[in-house]
Amino acid sequence: MKEIKIFSPATIANLSCGFDVLGLCLDNIGDEMIIRKSDEKGIRITKIFGADLPLEAEKNVAGVAALAMLNHWQTDFGFDIEIYKNIKAGSGIGSSAASSAGAVFGINELLGRPFETKDLVQFAMQGEKLASGSAHADNVAPALLGGFTLIRSYDPLDIIKINSPSELYATVIHPQIELKTSDARSVLKQNITLKSAIVQWGNVGGLIAGLYTNDYDLIGRSLHDEIVEPLRSVLIPGFDQVKNTAIHNGALGAGISGSGPSIFALSRGKETAENVALAMSKVFDEMKLPYEIHVSQINSNGVKIISHD
Amino acid sequence: MKEIKIFSPATIANLSCGFDVLGLCLDNIGDEMIIRKSDEKGIRITKIFGADLPLEAEKNVAGVAALAMLNHWQTDFGFDIEIYKNIKAGSGIGSSAASSAGAVFGINELLGRPFETKDLVQFAMQGEKLASGSAHADNVAPALLGGFTLIRSYDPLDIIKINSPSELYATVIHPQIELKTSDARSVLKQNITLKSAIVQWGNVGGLIAGLYTNDYDLIGRSLHDEIVEPLRSVLIPGFDQVKNTAIHNGALGAGISGSGPSIFALSRGKETAENVALAMSKVFDEMKLPYEIHVSQINSNGVKIISHD
Repeated sequence: MKEIKIFSPATIANLSCGFDVLGLCLDNIGDEMIIRKSDEKGIRITKIFGADLPLEAEKNVAGVAALAMLNHWQTDFGFDIEIYKNIKAGSGIGSSAASSAGAVFGINELLGRPFETKDLVQFAMQGEKLASGSAHADNVAPALLGGFTLIRSYDPLDIIKINSPSELYATVIHPQIELKTSDARSVLKQNITLKSAIVQWGNVGGLIAGLYTNDYDLIGRSLHDEIVEPLRSVLIPGFDQVKNTAIHNGALGAGISGSGPSIFALSRGKETAENVALAMSKVFDEMKLPYEIHVSQINSNGVKIISHD
Repeated sequence: MKEIKIFSPATIANLSCGFDVLGLCLDNIGDEMIIRKSDEKGIRITKIFGADLPLEAEKNVAGVAALAMLNHWQTDFGFDIEIYKNIKAGSGIGSSAASSAGAVFGINELLGRPFETKDLVQFAMQGEKLASGSAHADNVAPALLGGFTLIRSYDPLDIIKINSPSELYATVIHPQIELKTSDARSVLKQNITLKSAIVQWGNVGGLIAGLYTNDYDLIGRSLHDEIVEPLRSVLIPGFDQVKNTAIHNGALGAGISGSGPSIFALSRGKETAENVALAMSKVFDEMKLPYEIHVSQINSNGVKIISHD
């Protein structure tokens, strides 16, 4: 195999109660990447379409992730990477994670899979470190593994993949406002009450239990964030209305996607997820706030091969 | 049915990461109770063997739980309760919970089961309120339902039962020291760091995932308490040694049972659990600290009927 074309999916991190530990993989929203073996050693980003991002490998998340991987696997050749961005940077649905995850997945395929998919997460995390300053895994893990992922621990890295109940759909609306990750981080408090933390880990447990038992109502009841959402949601205009109308229209639950500004809802069945999309859209229509909206099944496989040569 | 004799089991609450939300039910450690219908209305505690506890119904946890239940189910008759305590008060393995759970379970049987077992938890919690000042459910829920239980939420009460992997065994050692629940509560801090809370809810998620997938190693990796154990364990002499020797001898993990002073370990297989028991015992033998030790499979049913008439 000399060339591979892949689809690298968008992801939703945090999922209300699971701040910094939970994420899920979307199915029909994502970037495409073409990666080619080259006689020249190292990593080159040769083209980026759809976004104004640096071509220098050391300054590009895909390049940094790929270089981290090649530090652990010596080759006599190198790789050229073309990136076709569909996920907007700063949307809160894992734009940088898609690039990082796609790069290491594609190169691993071209190398004949020396690494297990799970082992690729640590390399992709280096791209996240470049993008946000912290090597978080809650977007790259679901992008690579698919389904839902739980980061049980960062030290050592311990990732559990959880298959999605088959009728679960996500609706994601991205209001076209700028919300810097640094601002979304700065509203967080370093200390929280033990009482609120107990509520939160009860819900994390409930969400995991709901996923294993296909208990959609339990999933819905557990999609509650006692700690981060109250602080961050004020940065997203119309958040409460969008969330409430999603639930009123049948969503199991809703919350901030990643660090925002996108808002996600989970629903049982495609029809409900589409009704929820309509209802969420109306709120931003009335506010005359431009947005993008997506309805997606949960992607159970993560990054996919489109073609290879 | 006029009379019922039941076995009401001991329980382990918290389970390291799951402070205030997780518990499990033990199999061969517990109290016995005999409950009889009586022409006289109300609740009477007629005998208590094995413990010096109040006979007045309003001051006895079994009486208070039973009265809470009868507030929701009017009868023309009443109940006499005999209690045979085997679980020592203040041991940290749910002594008061066994009495409360047993009382409401037995009366529900004698009434022809007007309540679902899950609905009995709220009544038994009133006994816990008398015992410790807070109506917690993390011992009464596993005592009534068996297996592992997760209290996803207290308001509204939302309890999820999780079946135990079949090879899971608990070892519990009870050093004969007095550790007041109020002292165990007073060392807790009202505020914790967000960072430690994230570690904790990652582990709660991991433990739940491990239980559903029979992943014993994952269960072990998740039995870690970032928040409460470091503060409480100093109140239990020899705690670190007992915990370390348990893990060194094959236990998946170990921690404080409830608010202590009992220390529990979980192991895969009876033989390992018994080896762990020997190793834990040695620590207290060398400290010349008297103790009781138990090895038990996880009880998947909760309170059991021994006989009825």
